[in-house]
Amino acid sequence: MNGSDCLFCKIGSGEIEANIVYETDEVIAFRDINPQAPTHALIIPKRHIATINELEETDAEIVGKLFIAAGEIAGQEGFSEPGYRVTMNCNAAAGQTVFHIHLHLLGGRDFSWPPG
Amino acid sequence: MNGSDCLFCKIGSGEIEANIVYETDEVIAFRDINPQAPTHALIIPKRHIATINELEETDAEIVGKLFIAAGEIAGQEGFSEPGYRVTMNCNAAAGQTVFHIHLHLLGGRDFSWPPG
Repeated sequence: MNGSDCLFCKIGSGEIEANIVYETDEVIAFRDINPQAPTHALIIPKRHIATINELEETDAEIVGKLFIAAGEIAGQEGFSEPGYRVTMNCNAAAGQTVFHIHLHLLGGRDFSWPPG
Repeated sequence: MNGSDCLFCKIGSGEIEANIVYETDEVIAFRDINPQAPTHALIIPKRHIATINELEETDAEIVGKLFIAAGEIAGQEGFSEPGYRVTMNCNAAAGQTVFHIHLHLLGGRDFSWPPG
């Protein structure tokens, strides 16, 4: 699958609408349509990367920028201080359903352990 | 807190022993002493960063390298294909107890949703 077939590529390019909470040239974040916390955003690179397994060394910076975004959104939404959880699923055992990497940011409640 | 007081800095420098599963100049990963899956590793930068909230733009690459490490360890442990979950907790609401960022890598079983 490449950009032309990928739901999250289409959100990144603006072809499909989403409830955007953060955007830079390289990263976009939008609210999950099936939220699992008061705030539940998906933070993605606009560039297509299918799973963590496909990451190359040269992708490190863009993946790190997903975390910079998480910190920014937490500030916007007001839960930096109580805290929040970020999670990324890889493949079926973890429940990955869209094969374009996305960092789940969940905040606004307490979180139990283990993480699923 | 800085490197001289931080448990994970001491693991990164070799001052405190851990069950190491991956190491580069900048990143080290070791087994969690209270595992929540058949494989449960903590992947950290050797350099001290307390929480996601403290990340600067210049930290993006090192955070991304934690994910490069996750993919490598998944391959070593044989669960790249069924899949795995990575999680990072920020502050008390998510249960962060060591204030040196650490990416939890959990593999070897299926994972439920939500992630805690």
